[in-house]
Amino acid sequence: MNTDILIIGSGPAGIQAAIYAARRKVDVIILGKLENSSLAKAHVENYFGISGPIVGIDLLRVGKEQAEKFGAKFIEEDALHLERKDDKFIVKTEGGKEVESKAVIFAMGVSRKKLGVKGEQQFQGRGVSYCAECDCGFFKGKKVAVIGDGSAAASSAILLAKYASKVYLISKKLSTSEHLQDELKVGNIEIIEGKRISEIYGNSAVGGIKLDGSSLEVEGVFIELGSKGVIELAVNVGLLPDPRGYIHVNEEQKTSVLGIFACGDICGPPLQLAKAVGEGCIAGIEAAEYVKRISKLEKQTV
Amino acid sequence: MNTDILIIGSGPAGIQAAIYAARRKVDVIILGKLENSSLAKAHVENYFGISGPIVGIDLLRVGKEQAEKFGAKFIEEDALHLERKDDKFIVKTEGGKEVESKAVIFAMGVSRKKLGVKGEQQFQGRGVSYCAECDCGFFKGKKVAVIGDGSAAASSAILLAKYASKVYLISKKLSTSEHLQDELKVGNIEIIEGKRISEIYGNSAVGGIKLDGSSLEVEGVFIELGSKGVIELAVNVGLLPDPRGYIHVNEEQKTSVLGIFACGDICGPPLQLAKAVGEGCIAGIEAAEYVKRISKLEKQTV
Repeated sequence: MNTDILIIGSGPAGIQAAIYAARRKVDVIILGKLENSSLAKAHVENYFGISGPIVGIDLLRVGKEQAEKFGAKFIEEDALHLERKDDKFIVKTEGGKEVESKAVIFAMGVSRKKLGVKGEQQFQGRGVSYCAECDCGFFKGKKVAVIGDGSAAASSAILLAKYASKVYLISKKLSTSEHLQDELKVGNIEIIEGKRISEIYGNSAVGGIKLDGSSLEVEGVFIELGSKGVIELAVNVGLLPDPRGYIHVNEEQKTSVLGIFACGDICGPPLQLAKAVGEGCIAGIEAAEYVKRISKLEKQTV
Repeated sequence: MNTDILIIGSGPAGIQAAIYAARRKVDVIILGKLENSSLAKAHVENYFGISGPIVGIDLLRVGKEQAEKFGAKFIEEDALHLERKDDKFIVKTEGGKEVESKAVIFAMGVSRKKLGVKGEQQFQGRGVSYCAECDCGFFKGKKVAVIGDGSAAASSAILLAKYASKVYLISKKLSTSEHLQDELKVGNIEIIEGKRISEIYGNSAVGGIKLDGSSLEVEGVFIELGSKGVIELAVNVGLLPDPRGYIHVNEEQKTSVLGIFACGDICGPPLQLAKAVGEGCIAGIEAAEYVKRISKLEKQTV
């Protein structure tokens, strides 16, 4: 299979890039499963123009239709392997498909590290969240727990303290900047160190967590253990993510490898829908212009 | 009147910034009239998550409600004058209000240069457009005219030629790159130089243009004369726009003046809704963090 632009990742950044590129009448294939986007289970109320709260998967479905309307083709499979071959890129999918492309847009996001306890998956989107910035507004006057050891966990606790009645910041050993330590000193934040979480329980939504055998009643659990980048695909084409797993781009969303663009969460924080579509718009335009330019050079050479 | 953050401009960039800043519980005032945003009369179909076409003003009204829900206050007046006073900024509005703020976000967009002929205003959004990238999809199989002398006009004609049956590129004297001149050589683009447009006519929508007395039937008129920046406010606080009228920012949407952030069209092309909200998200977060930081320093000094 051949295309002009291959987009890896079908979250908001990838879909927005597909919309812009396809409108410029280049061939666009987009790889990935909508439900794997970290947007899929989020409740969105902070995205300009959509009052919400709306479940992310509904936005993704609309976005897919938009991109298809302009001519982009979706393959709902994950990319397994990516390599450069002469001036093309070749990707292999989990279903055994091979796609050859002139340009690639990385939009595979980051997967939030999981806590790995009972109830975590069951209650995701029903009390369990990986994004305080996105979901803080849903926990006004409620008790919540934030789980993590670093600055991301501390910042989330500080933000949530403006909404929740009580914030438990639960860590093995909290390690954060002096600045944030100061900000943590508000009345409704309680730091609990050295205890182990064994379960998130509840009925239709989160009711509490089990902490070294005892129970702590909360309605929200924010898991802030950092992100896992999708490093393997990048490294194979000579693209080195930074120590946090993010890929650096310039103002035109170009990476250090000619022909590879990146947008959305994989480019780093803030991991926000609005930022992802902004970068997707630029990546889509720039990748289309790049493909038009090299196609013209090829013609001249022939 | 006092606030933490003053946002000048109530288009998508300003409103998205207001949503993010207000969610961080700092005081936010946003200045400007919704209907003055260049989004107001646009027909949107390329913004992730909204299938459209939807008229921009409807998105702006939803965005305003979102920002208000989180606590942002709107003053529907234009900013007339901005100055720095010690470590604060003071803005005066057309209605005589004075707002003092710790930080300012520039989000006033750019106003597209007008052609200034009969019918231009009457048919805006009904055949007259200032953005080929936004509106190209509505002119499939139709005849359109693009008006302008530079690269923006040439690029728009090239893009439109992929949709329209015929594109007239009308200029006094076309001046563009060799690369674009080459791309203009497609069968359905006709360059008309040296003629003067005196009128855009039609009934409920554009029917054609008057060109040195003769008539040319088109259903779309794309005016690409460049943009006018809102320079006065910026210069007065020591912020120098570039020769095209755009304001430079870094990755955190910070300008060269401490305490002033910028987002959206005023930061330069692509002048797209998706890019504006992406930048607005970052400007809102960064301005809120800035205000929290200086407020803390003030307390320590006292």
